[in-house]
Order: sequence, then structure tokens, then C-alpha cells
Amino acid sequence: MFSKQDSIYYDVLGIGNAIVDVLAKVGEGFLRERNLPKGSMVELEAADAGKIYADLITEREVPGGSAANTVAGLASLGGAPAFIGKIHDDELGQEFARDIGAAGVDFFTQPLNKGPVTGRSIVLVTPDAERSMFTYLGASKYLSAVDVDENLIEASQIIYIEGYLWDNFNAQRAMLRACKLAQKYGRKVAFSLSDSLCVKRHTREFRKLIKRYVDILFCNEDEIKALFEEEDFYKTLDMIKTDVEIAAITRSAKGSVVVNGRVKTFVEAEKVETVVDSTGAGDLYAAGFLYGYTQRRSLGTCAMIGSIVAAEIISHYGARPEVSLRGLVRNKLLSYGKKP
Amino acid sequence: MFSKQDSIYYDVLGIGNAIVDVLAKVGEGFLRERNLPKGSMVELEAADAGKIYADLITEREVPGGSAANTVAGLASLGGAPAFIGKIHDDELGQEFARDIGAAGVDFFTQPLNKGPVTGRSIVLVTPDAERSMFTYLGASKYLSAVDVDENLIEASQIIYIEGYLWDNFNAQRAMLRACKLAQKYGRKVAFSLSDSLCVKRHTREFRKLIKRYVDILFCNEDEIKALFEEEDFYKTLDMIKTDVEIAAITRSAKGSVVVNGRVKTFVEAEKVETVVDSTGAGDLYAAGFLYGYTQRRSLGTCAMIGSIVAAEIISHYGARPEVSLRGLVRNKLLSYGKKP
Repeated sequence: MFSKQDSIYYDVLGIGNAIVDVLAKVGEGFLRERNLPKGSMVELEAADAGKIYADLITEREVPGGSAANTVAGLASLGGAPAFIGKIHDDELGQEFARDIGAAGVDFFTQPLNKGPVTGRSIVLVTPDAERSMFTYLGASKYLSAVDVDENLIEASQIIYIEGYLWDNFNAQRAMLRACKLAQKYGRKVAFSLSDSLCVKRHTREFRKLIKRYVDILFCNEDEIKALFEEEDFYKTLDMIKTDVEIAAITRSAKGSVVVNGRVKTFVEAEKVETVVDSTGAGDLYAAGFLYGYTQRRSLGTCAMIGSIVAAEIISHYGARPEVSLRGLVRNKLLSYGKKP
Repeated sequence: MFSKQDSIYYDVLGIGNAIVDVLAKVGEGFLRERNLPKGSMVELEAADAGKIYADLITEREVPGGSAANTVAGLASLGGAPAFIGKIHDDELGQEFARDIGAAGVDFFTQPLNKGPVTGRSIVLVTPDAERSMFTYLGASKYLSAVDVDENLIEASQIIYIEGYLWDNFNAQRAMLRACKLAQKYGRKVAFSLSDSLCVKRHTREFRKLIKRYVDILFCNEDEIKALFEEEDFYKTLDMIKTDVEIAAITRSAKGSVVVNGRVKTFVEAEKVETVVDSTGAGDLYAAGFLYGYTQRRSLGTCAMIGSIVAAEIISHYGARPEVSLRGLVRNKLLSYGKKP
């Protein structure tokens, strides 16, 4: 007989939106002619997204998506991740699948053959270096409970779910099925609050979900304040401690705090010369933290690895690592006198 | 060939004053007749101590001494400790040796055959339950460098030294020899600041000692403030972090903080119904912490064990455990969902 632990094959199974970030340099006129707002993030309808995309000379297409970024980071660290997310079987979708596979992430979700195209976040960079983002979730919205493979849940030590999924009814059911199966097989559920606006849309539901299912919570200072509708950060730390086993809360330059019952661990942020693009900082912090966790490192070291990895991501464009994170973390830990 | 680690036989070697706490109930008249101050701790000369002791009907004699309390606690937790300290080969000294041995601590230091008698702290409890303490260091002051057995240092993972030793010139040399031998054999030096008045007597020297030799520092909030002559507690945490590998700082009901480079871990205090006698709280916290450390537990768990053990000690008279700490810690950790 196999024991319960013998069936584990993956460190982390990420479940989230499958998005390709399309980076393009455009002139000021491009935005003006199409009446597109500058410098913010806007969710788009299919037709509008398609129209913009068709007109672009793409600079780079880089796979994105919050949980997808996390599992790609985990792979770069030397972990063994898998991913569940919905693409369309179109060019962009094939690119997403190819990229996440090449990064070392197992990805088996059945793509759509009809209906909306693969989700994308069009990032337009104007000559003044400002970024205007236009996100179209597309096929991602069609992730459903049948995509949550029971075998994959059983085979994964941690199921990592992004909060953005809760915005769609189908994805909600996928998420609940994943949580229930995780409990059935004694797997840990990790959950990212994603975005403080997302938390504000679902405050009550998120609190119930977290109490009922979540073992490891990832969020930032704004998100946990939104979750508890409480402005005093230190109070929120005492509020979350009975709801989850571990809460890892990032605070930008102030570092991060890990709450684990009666123990609160404060870890300094890594110094970054120039913050080029903060997209993916939280996703990669989670990757580093979960890598440490699956390696049975102390919570302080988990947070330290998270910070090292987040610092790499924000020092360049895009939310996927540009160096081998495994080597980076090894050298940094050694420089702090820690076992690599 | 043995490797460096193969020669380790003891978890912790304590070096400190060898003191017996003599508890006696006396009437108010006893103090008044002898002109003894009530409710404080006073260091006594031999003659005075002998006189008081001769007149007493002793309630209980319990072995004490800061580092001795720590290693006795470690033994009760299931660790393997040894102790270096100076007794006289008199009745009280034999009692100290018997007790520490019975507690599970190896104690080989050659006793004095002449000169001062074994150190004692006479604790007089008046009918109003107030405690008046009269300490006479006696033989303890004669601990010297030759008592620091090189084999014992080599055989111990951690050398734990109490700051009180620095008050005597002979003991200073014993302490320096222990530190140097610890470095020679790659052993960790743990150091307790003992008492904020003791820190104030030796501020500069302690700072140099710590920077040069100490790996693990134990102190309380007042002591670290005295060490850095800095009133802002949070500033002292950033001052100590580059001097030692680990600083474990107790804060009574506010719990404790462990500083480890870029990581600060805050752990809540154990709840105690009634604080009966706070003597030994710091000594036993160190015992619990070091037990966790030698068992390779996380720093948060080390601090948690320290708090559990300290809570036991302050719930009764005397600074030696009255239950098996091993069982107590097991049950508490299980109740917090931790591996025992």
C-alpha cells in the first residue's frame, strides 16, 4: 500500500487565470485615436481587445496570470509545480502553454475550441515609459469545476489559488471543488487575496472561504486591511491568526510579516536598486515562500526567499524571472549565513 | 577519524555561580533583631551569612544559580547538559552537587577544600509572604580558568555563560578561556546578561565580549536597553542584529522577541494564572530556547518552548522545575498544533 504522502508528486498546483501579457511600444497617438485611458488598468470586452491587438506591432508577449507567475517562479527555484487554467486553443493560448511548459510547469487543462480567445493583458508602453494596461480575461472565465482534476489535487502538496478567480461564477465552482478535494486528501490550500479591490468586492465571502478552507494566506497590507475592514495593521495580524495556519503579508519596502498562531515573524525587504515594474512582486514572493515551505525551511527563511525572488522580479519588466532563481537564492542565502 | 561533530556529547555546558537557595519562614522579629532589610536582595559577607544561616530553621534548601537553573531545566526537557561552577566540599556544596546530578546534569568541577563555604542565597519569608534575599557568593567567587576543562568544551554543542561571572576577576578569566576554547572547537557561545545592574557595571566590556565571542544572547528588555544605553527598544533590536547570530529577548507578559539577522520573531507569552515567584524565569526561558535550538526547531518554536517552561517556573517558589518539563512542553506544543 502507498501511504498518503507517497502519492504526492507536485509541490504546488496553481489554479488561476491563464493570461498572456502583450507588451508593445506605441506612440501617444495610438491611445488617443482609440480613446484609450493612459496609465491605468482597464478590463476590456473581447471586441475591443481584439481590435487593439490586431493593430499592434508587438514588442514581446510574455506569459502572465497571477498563480501562473507563482508556479513558474517555483519551477525556476527548483520546485515541482503544475497549473490549472483555461486557454483557447489559439496562437496566444498555444504560446501560454508552450511557455509555462518550458518554464518547468506541468499544464494539462483542456483548452477551449470555440468561444472566447485566450485571455490577455495588453501593456502599452508610450515613449514617456508609462504603462497602460488593458486586460481581457477571455477563455480564463470559462475555467470550471470539471477542469479541477481530482488526481492532480491528490498528487499536490499545496493547492495555490488566486483570489481573482472568485470574480467568475464558473471559476468559483472550480475553486470550491479544489478546496473540498484538498481537504479530502489532506492537502494544504494556499490562497492569494490578489488585489484590494477584489477583496472589497467579496469581503464576507472571502472571510468565510478563508476560515473554512485556507491553510496559507498570501496578501499585502492593503488587502488584509480590506479583508477585516480594519485600518490598524497590527490588529489585523491578531485577527487572522486564528483563521489560518500561516498568513504571509507583504509590505513593499517594509518587508513582510508571517503570522503563525502565537508567533509573528518580521523579515526585512531585499534592497532593490531601481524598481522597474512591480507587477508580479506578490506572485513571486508567494513562489519563494512556498518553495521554502515545501523544503521545510523555517518561516523566517521562507519569507526571506520570498523577498529575494520578489526583488528580482521588480527589477525588470514582466512577472516571470529573467535569471535562474535557484542560483540567485542560493547566493543570497549564503551571503546571509544561511544554509542554501 | 572522528569528525568535529562526533566528539559532541553534551547539548549545553553551563558555566556560572553554584548557589543554594535556602528558604526559611521567619517571624518579623528575626529580621528586626538582626537589623536586616526587608523585601530586597542584598549581597552579604561570609560572617553575616554564616550567622543568619546558623540561626535558621530551614524550610527548604533548593539548588539555585542562574546558569545552573538553566542546565537543570534543560535536563528536565530531555537534553544532555553539564555544569561548571565552584562549590566548597561542605554540606551545602555536597547538596548542590547531589541535586544537580539527580536533576540529570553532569557536574565535575573540583570543590574547594579550604576558604569560603558554598555560596548561598538565603530567602527569608515573613508571615506576610514577603521575600527578603541575602546572597553570599562564597566559593563561587573562586571559579578560575583551570576549572574550564578543555575536553568538556570540545564535547559541548553550546557553552552557556551567565553574565554575573564577570563580577569576579577569577571568573572573568574562566569565562574568557571558555569563549576562546569554544571558538577553537567551533562551539556556540551563549551568554546571559543576567541583570540590568550587572550590565550597567560592565557596559563597555559586555559590548566587546558580545561582538567578539557571543553567538546566542539571552537578555530582557531592560538589560538590552542598558547594554546599548538606548531607551527605544525597537532600536536596540536593530543594534544587536549584527553583533550576534541570535538574540532572544524576554519581555515578561509581552512575550519574547528573537532577532536573527534580517528576521525578527515575536512570540506571545504563556498565560500564567498567578505569578508566585518570578525568580528563574529568564534562566528557564533560556533552557527551553536552547532545548529547541539543539533539537533544530524553528526560532519561533524555540521561543515558544522557552515561554512554556518559564511559565511553569514562575507559578511556584524556586527556580527549578516541579514537573517533568518534557511532558509539559509536549502537551503544550500539541495544543498549539505543533510537532511535540
